[in-house]
Amino acid sequence: MPRYKITVEYDGTGLCGWQKQNDAPSIQQHLQEAVKKFCGEEIAVIASGRTDAGVHAVGQVAHFDISKKYKTYNVMHGINFYLDELSIKVVKAQIAKPDFNARFSAKRRYYRYHIINRNAPLALDKNRAWNVYKKLDVKAMKTASEFLLGEHDFTSFRASECQAKSPVKTLDEIKITKKGENIYFDITARSFLHHMVRNIVGSLKMVGSGDWQPKEIKKALEAKSRAAAGPTAPAYGLYLMKVIY
Amino acid sequence: MPRYKITVEYDGTGLCGWQKQNDAPSIQQHLQEAVKKFCGEEIAVIASGRTDAGVHAVGQVAHFDISKKYKTYNVMHGINFYLDELSIKVVKAQIAKPDFNARFSAKRRYYRYHIINRNAPLALDKNRAWNVYKKLDVKAMKTASEFLLGEHDFTSFRASECQAKSPVKTLDEIKITKKGENIYFDITARSFLHHMVRNIVGSLKMVGSGDWQPKEIKKALEAKSRAAAGPTAPAYGLYLMKVIY
Repeated sequence: MPRYKITVEYDGTGLCGWQKQNDAPSIQQHLQEAVKKFCGEEIAVIASGRTDAGVHAVGQVAHFDISKKYKTYNVMHGINFYLDELSIKVVKAQIAKPDFNARFSAKRRYYRYHIINRNAPLALDKNRAWNVYKKLDVKAMKTASEFLLGEHDFTSFRASECQAKSPVKTLDEIKITKKGENIYFDITARSFLHHMVRNIVGSLKMVGSGDWQPKEIKKALEAKSRAAAGPTAPAYGLYLMKVIY
Repeated sequence: MPRYKITVEYDGTGLCGWQKQNDAPSIQQHLQEAVKKFCGEEIAVIASGRTDAGVHAVGQVAHFDISKKYKTYNVMHGINFYLDELSIKVVKAQIAKPDFNARFSAKRRYYRYHIINRNAPLALDKNRAWNVYKKLDVKAMKTASEFLLGEHDFTSFRASECQAKSPVKTLDEIKITKKGENIYFDITARSFLHHMVRNIVGSLKMVGSGDWQPKEIKKALEAKSRAAAGPTAPAYGLYLMKVIY
């Protein structure tokens, strides 16, 4: 029974996220239905992690088993054929080792958060970036971000519904880059708590806008209380960029 | 009677282009209606040039006259308020000199064409880039593009319905940049013939894919016949980036 590893790109707009929730269409469900139409088998597609409603992916990774061995080229194009007009596409398909698990074998996850910092609403990047009107101080946000690097108890940046056993995570990198009116936050870790990236960006934005001093990020972290950190940045600015195994 | 100069960003997907055609919604019409709702005046919004159905803009420029003098901040936000959910937004508003004309005062127009060169369909850039599966030779396209620089009779790259008096135009720059799977064509001139950028890109793609030798672009140009050049690249990969006055 061959195991396939697929890399998936999606625009999360109008979708309820990776996993089925209520009766809204999920990315997982669309993929499972496309696989079924492609090969006739009802299977589970397991991702590196769930993404929330509205969150996008450049390189989500998932695995599934089907009984027949296909050429990877046919797996990719066969599934994409049935995804048709949906903004979900398989961009790579590979044969995986039998013990490969998209979720548990992941060594590093790369997220990017995109802010467009301008005093005008968005047309081209509507639903694809967070539009912040007030000019943000990138240098102050960089200073603040350094308090979050390394191993910490990230309770303050964790959604109340988070199911992780431990709030301790190790943040490998937060790179903040300004390119014209665009500000990118590239955030890397082995794994994240629920809403962790969005809560970090929402808190750093408080620093960028001058509402907080950089050292208040340190205080928020040490408080180990969600109430001590900033608001959750909107889902539509977030991209799962890649997963390394 | 103050004249306003506005810079407009839009996602051309689902719109019939700048100018009203048949009964489909045009960008010009949406803007005129928003201006009317904002200030109660029925006016004409004149752009630097028409863009075709599906073509996008980062920096289209237009002008209009209204009898009342508003703060430019209010003009921008007032119009945007009535554009509401549409993917058309005013990103800058300025008071212009009475003799400023968005079309006739333009000194240089910058277009960008975006190809995504990969063997997988698009999710995030659906309707926003031309997806070319076959690997393109960027070096060959660069060589070919040099034949087009400067003043030429561009009849071979002109749509049959083009209304320009003369087919002679001066191409200032064609810069071709590869960034991962993205290929950008940055093309600059004082003015262009109808479909000229898309016909140039469609022809350069013939070179990139190996169907044509670079020098065949020179032959196509010299033939002064539309049939001698390549097919028209799709509208949805094209962006009007900026207009200089």
